[in-house]
Amino acid sequence: MAILLFTDFGSGDIYVGQVKAVLQRHAPVIPVIDLLHEAPAYNVRASAHLLASMVGGFDEDNVFLAVVDPGVGGERDVLAMQADGRWFVGPDNGLLSVIGARARRGDSWRIVWRPQKLSASFHGRDLFAPVAAILALQNGLPRGWFEHVDKPGVEFGGDDLPEIIYVDHYGNCHTGIRAGGIPREMQLVAGKSRLRYARVFAEAAAAFWYENSQGLVEVAVNRGSAAQLLGLKIGDGVGWA
Amino acid sequence: MAILLFTDFGSGDIYVGQVKAVLQRHAPVIPVIDLLHEAPAYNVRASAHLLASMVGGFDEDNVFLAVVDPGVGGERDVLAMQADGRWFVGPDNGLLSVIGARARRGDSWRIVWRPQKLSASFHGRDLFAPVAAILALQNGLPRGWFEHVDKPGVEFGGDDLPEIIYVDHYGNCHTGIRAGGIPREMQLVAGKSRLRYARVFAEAAAAFWYENSQGLVEVAVNRGSAAQLLGLKIGDGVGWA
Amino acid sequence: MAILLFTDFGSGDIYVGQVKAVLQRHAPVIPVIDLLHEAPAYNVRASAHLLASMVGGFDEDNVFLAVVDPGVGGERDVLAMQADGRWFVGPDNGLLSVIGARARRGDSWRIVWRPQKLSASFHGRDLFAPVAAILALQNGLPRGWFEHVDKPGVEFGGDDLPEIIYVDHYGNCHTGIRAGGIPREMQLVAGKSRLRYARVFAEAAAAFWYENSQGLVEVAVNRGSAAQLLGLKIGDGVGWA
Repeated sequence: MAILLFTDFGSGDIYVGQVKAVLQRHAPVIPVIDLLHEAPAYNVRASAHLLASMVGGFDEDNVFLAVVDPGVGGERDVLAMQADGRWFVGPDNGLLSVIGARARRGDSWRIVWRPQKLSASFHGRDLFAPVAAILALQNGLPRGWFEHVDKPGVEFGGDDLPEIIYVDHYGNCHTGIRAGGIPREMQLVAGKSRLRYARVFAEAAAAFWYENSQGLVEVAVNRGSAAQLLGLKIGDGVGWA
Repeated sequence: MAILLFTDFGSGDIYVGQVKAVLQRHAPVIPVIDLLHEAPAYNVRASAHLLASMVGGFDEDNVFLAVVDPGVGGERDVLAMQADGRWFVGPDNGLLSVIGARARRGDSWRIVWRPQKLSASFHGRDLFAPVAAILALQNGLPRGWFEHVDKPGVEFGGDDLPEIIYVDHYGNCHTGIRAGGIPREMQLVAGKSRLRYARVFAEAAAAFWYENSQGLVEVAVNRGSAAQLLGLKIGDGVGWA
Repeated sequence: MAILLFTDFGSGDIYVGQVKAVLQRHAPVIPVIDLLHEAPAYNVRASAHLLASMVGGFDEDNVFLAVVDPGVGGERDVLAMQADGRWFVGPDNGLLSVIGARARRGDSWRIVWRPQKLSASFHGRDLFAPVAAILALQNGLPRGWFEHVDKPGVEFGGDDLPEIIYVDHYGNCHTGIRAGGIPREMQLVAGKSRLRYARVFAEAAAAFWYENSQGLVEVAVNRGSAAQLLGLKIGDGVGWA
């Protein structure tokens, strides 16, 4: 049981520590783990697919605090979602919706609770963190904090996203395509390249695609940067030859 | 209750983990939270103002370990300070002095204790970390480790600093001006631009100033980098039109 | 007692959090500390020397999870090593071998246990993390998981490495030379420069060498980047004039 953080706050920036200080004050016994703080900023759809690829290994009763929220301080709602037993807290801008669409069972609530002091720009600290803490402590919804909704306000659906959704620090390019059902003889078109499948880095001579450790189709180069070599970036479309 | 770290050690570098290992050895029960490890290196004044903006939300009895210390290994003293009930440990180079000047009640001590093994360049690990651990464990000063001083050796005072003191990873430019008393019709001059106030990002069409989540005047652009767009960097002066 | 992480996974990337989630699930009571996640990728030898410089301060019974593993998914073995009472888990590609060669007492085992689900590219999460967790919990080897080996498959030996092995975020250049026995009148040749010794940054007017806080010879510049000023990077040779 833990609170898992997934944000675009920047792993080296001033924001994550402030969120953790709030979590520590409200729920000192709950461990907090940084999943990612470099989620694609301003790109909620890519972030939603990346997040969806990272939750599969986690038990029920874990709480995910997810914030990629360019509309902070505006009119968007804030959401709590339960999907296959796991809890999610975040803005109602689609970020949680890929997980919701793929879940075998799930439910959503609008968060109506507001803190006494709510900054205009840092709901991650002021609003989402206290809600995540109380969800983790109670493993449920405190009375009066939430209103059930039939579905989130913004939904991206559960289909794959045939785009680059993340570039890691090695230069590997993660797509939003789940690799499970893809025949290994298929060739991936990315940028101007047609790429063959390889099982592992060590077996590949050139750029290749493979099933990465989150189950996604990923473009990689052995001991090199696929992003640099092939000129790929987040948002670029990919397809099958 | 926690030990909060504020340094220029680099969040991805080899130094923070060594500090944490010392804290864990001396005070395994005390949680440790990274506030920032990308404080403006070599710029103690900007760092002092940034630190001062980040401590307001914390309860008494928290311990801040603060290190921006270009003079490490030289003649500067090392300091423990209590300000409004919170503890601070750091070099006596002004880093803690903005907090000290603004505190309603406070006191300062020179740290005279020295470890058996003290490296010339890493007092954060060898000296400040054991002192922070013992302050956190005892919530007070162990006998013989400290000598009371009337005031720190270097003081910047408590006034606002009309400069860019921090640029975050979005490119937002934080100033050292507290926004509380500033009339919202004032226009901020930063670089060659005159900027109007906006309450939130979503309401702004162009570059603007607003009160950020630490209470400072900040220059920002909706879904873009103010630093890049306006050519701003740490140390640049700002003013009111 | 802690699990210490030393990897090239990137401190801001998606990998470290997944490792920590596995550790938390298997060994929730054991603290986990990030030593470094920016180890020189693809450069196992430099990483091995850097790691060796960082373990000296740690007590027996600490467990180091070390992963710089460009051959992941290929034929290389996986290794558990005990050296001077500390435990190490990592790929058998030389990464642990500098520590092994320098230890006064040590022993090595091939890890034969495999998880039910083993990805091709992320043994840090799927294989090394569960092994590190169980070593930490039992302070020893569970029956049937390990086979004793006389020595690791790849060994770099314990000698110094007269190269730049790491460049920190200040631009300081760490070499693989232990500074203990080096006479202070020696001049270091790095790039096209001959550098004199200085005890601390504050005493140096130009680029200099000194004994850093891990006991290595390091090239530095007071308030500046030695890497930039002298044009140095990881892998560059150094020598004595």
